[in-house]
Amino acid sequence: TRTIDLALVPGDGIGPEVVAEGLKVLDAVLAGSGVTVNRTELELGAKRWHATGETLTDADLETIRGHDAILLGAIGDPTVPSGVLERGLLLKLRFALDHYVNLRPSKLFPGVPTPLADPGEVDFVVVREGTEGPYVGNGGAIRVGTPAEVANEVSVNTAFGVERVVRDAFARAQARPRKQLTLVHKHNVLVHAGHLWRRTVEAVGAEYPEVSVDYAHVDAATIYLVTDPARFDVIVTDNLFGDIITDLAAAISGGIGLAASGNINPDRSAPSMFEPVHGSAPDIAGTGTADPTATVLSVSLMLEHLGLTEEAARVSAAVAEDIGERDGTPRTTTQIGDALAARLGVRVAG
Amino acid sequence: TRTIDLALVPGDGIGPEVVAEGLKVLDAVLAGSGVTVNRTELELGAKRWHATGETLTDADLETIRGHDAILLGAIGDPTVPSGVLERGLLLKLRFALDHYVNLRPSKLFPGVPTPLADPGEVDFVVVREGTEGPYVGNGGAIRVGTPAEVANEVSVNTAFGVERVVRDAFARAQARPRKQLTLVHKHNVLVHAGHLWRRTVEAVGAEYPEVSVDYAHVDAATIYLVTDPARFDVIVTDNLFGDIITDLAAAISGGIGLAASGNINPDRSAPSMFEPVHGSAPDIAGTGTADPTATVLSVSLMLEHLGLTEEAARVSAAVAEDIGERDGTPRTTTQIGDALAARLGVRVAG
Ligand SMILES: CC(C)[C@H](C(=O)O)[C@@H](O)C(=O)O
Ligand SMILES: CC(C)[C@H](C(=O)O)[C@@H](O)C(=O)O
Repeated sequence: TRTIDLALVPGDGIGPEVVAEGLKVLDAVLAGSGVTVNRTELELGAKRWHATGETLTDADLETIRGHDAILLGAIGDPTVPSGVLERGLLLKLRFALDHYVNLRPSKLFPGVPTPLADPGEVDFVVVREGTEGPYVGNGGAIRVGTPAEVANEVSVNTAFGVERVVRDAFARAQARPRKQLTLVHKHNVLVHAGHLWRRTVEAVGAEYPEVSVDYAHVDAATIYLVTDPARFDVIVTDNLFGDIITDLAAAISGGIGLAASGNINPDRSAPSMFEPVHGSAPDIAGTGTADPTATVLSVSLMLEHLGLTEEAARVSAAVAEDIGERDGTPRTTTQIGDALAARLGVRVAG
Repeated sequence: TRTIDLALVPGDGIGPEVVAEGLKVLDAVLAGSGVTVNRTELELGAKRWHATGETLTDADLETIRGHDAILLGAIGDPTVPSGVLERGLLLKLRFALDHYVNLRPSKLFPGVPTPLADPGEVDFVVVREGTEGPYVGNGGAIRVGTPAEVANEVSVNTAFGVERVVRDAFARAQARPRKQLTLVHKHNVLVHAGHLWRRTVEAVGAEYPEVSVDYAHVDAATIYLVTDPARFDVIVTDNLFGDIITDLAAAISGGIGLAASGNINPDRSAPSMFEPVHGSAPDIAGTGTADPTATVLSVSLMLEHLGLTEEAARVSAAVAEDIGERDGTPRTTTQIGDALAARLGVRVAG
């Protein structure tokens, strides 16, 4: 028997609601497998910040480091000043735990509604850099609140940081049938960062002769995502461009309710973190209407990362089946989780 | 009789082809109006750079400054290193001539194909800041080409620069029936720049009580642009976010072949510049297949800026009619220009 030590960060808004369903599905798929899950729930997010002023302490981080993986719901609340929880908690986790691969697959399951009239076969994965770019927090402002204010934001890009994520993306492209990699950047304007990305893709690409490489400026990439998303296989891009295009990618492939992500530390020097791409959606928190599917698919990514490949595939298959049978009848968060767990239970029994 | 001194920068690729049609339509709409256009064509772009190493000299700028407006085709060529013409010519014009309002309207004309299944009424305008943000060229790199390379890009945002573009956006929102303004940024991550934008919108908004204001993170904005673009009226945003979302906006409202833009100097301390949003499209240059409509609509924006409101409206109306009668039969660049000019000619004669 194997034990998985799982750190839980349900977080804010709908976070706890969707995490509960993710865990229900996790239990269902592992039932009878001999794999046990030990859970440690951390109270992090708006409530904790209001009570203590803390976002993520060294002690919290130490606790989390002792685990095999993290399942996160959502972070962010309108009662907390913008940026405090995002930078102090969510991004701090990604940076401190060296989640340099932010993996965001987009697959349009058959039968899923999409805003596109003719989407074609959407099945690509975005490898978003997770520890550099304009997300590093190296900005600052002077003369704040005066007519002479200057506010700067610095995007930091290193050969070290770009090369490791580009390597990961090439390895993923090599493992996929189409073996195609697209670099998304804006090297005609952000020339220093852009040329570093370009040179790195060229250099690493020499080691992957079977992978065909192309390039799109981030602005053009948004056009392709709505006119011809089927052209993409693996996309590698910087932290901010990845943030932007993965929301768009989610929108065209079934909506943010289905978009899963993994914040991966490929070197396994710290636990990886799995979370839905959506936010805490305070407007619908407590109404039981959030779709937990994105969290469930994030659990599938987590199982995959933990080497439980068959279980990961069973969770994705259950989701695909569930989605295929949706007829527009509204279901609650719990009902969707129950339905997915039941599907897995049946398979276990069979 | 009035004389307009027009500087022409046809540029690279399809640039000269679409500018020729823009001028044809300009001549048609002004025929018999008593307005004369004096044209100065500047050879700027790849050819000039190859011949002389120059992108835009002080003398070129001086010449351009003496004009009432600039019509630009497209800049950029695969034979020139990335960034050289973009930064040295196109962005240099925008910065040197203080084009702080980069105006990009999106209107889905009836009958125009869109990738969206159910777009609704798309009719919004993006006011993209044009002289600050990550476009300022304040980046740099050290140890280039070594494993220790660091490449930084700095986004510079000033109260001066943000306030003037926000004021322009509020004035535009106030003048539109819906009177709605959306700030697009990413203030939960880019906290310094984001908070400056937010505070500025709040402060200026106090002077526009009739304008209703909301906010979307740039990632969420890309979702709305494909799920509910009708929600937008006026969007104000930074240079880079504006670049990204206006390509997406073009894609959903008829494609990049229809997207016009004005690089406006609202203070009129230098000529404003009008250009299609699309690039030089070297792959189709010389084939006569480029759609000049985006350039023609840019001519309409130019006429508007020059106070020739009725002529501007006639050009837009001609385009709307032409688009409404498109039946999918392919037409050449020249044929589309001829058809638009003929439509205006008929009206002049009638
Ligand atoms: C909440 C926010 C900080 C975060 C990000 O920008 O990365 C989110 O948008 C995401 O994509 O995970
Ligand atoms: C060519 C490029 C520098 C330019 C920009 O990024 O502004 C273009 O994409 C645009 O939108 O006008």
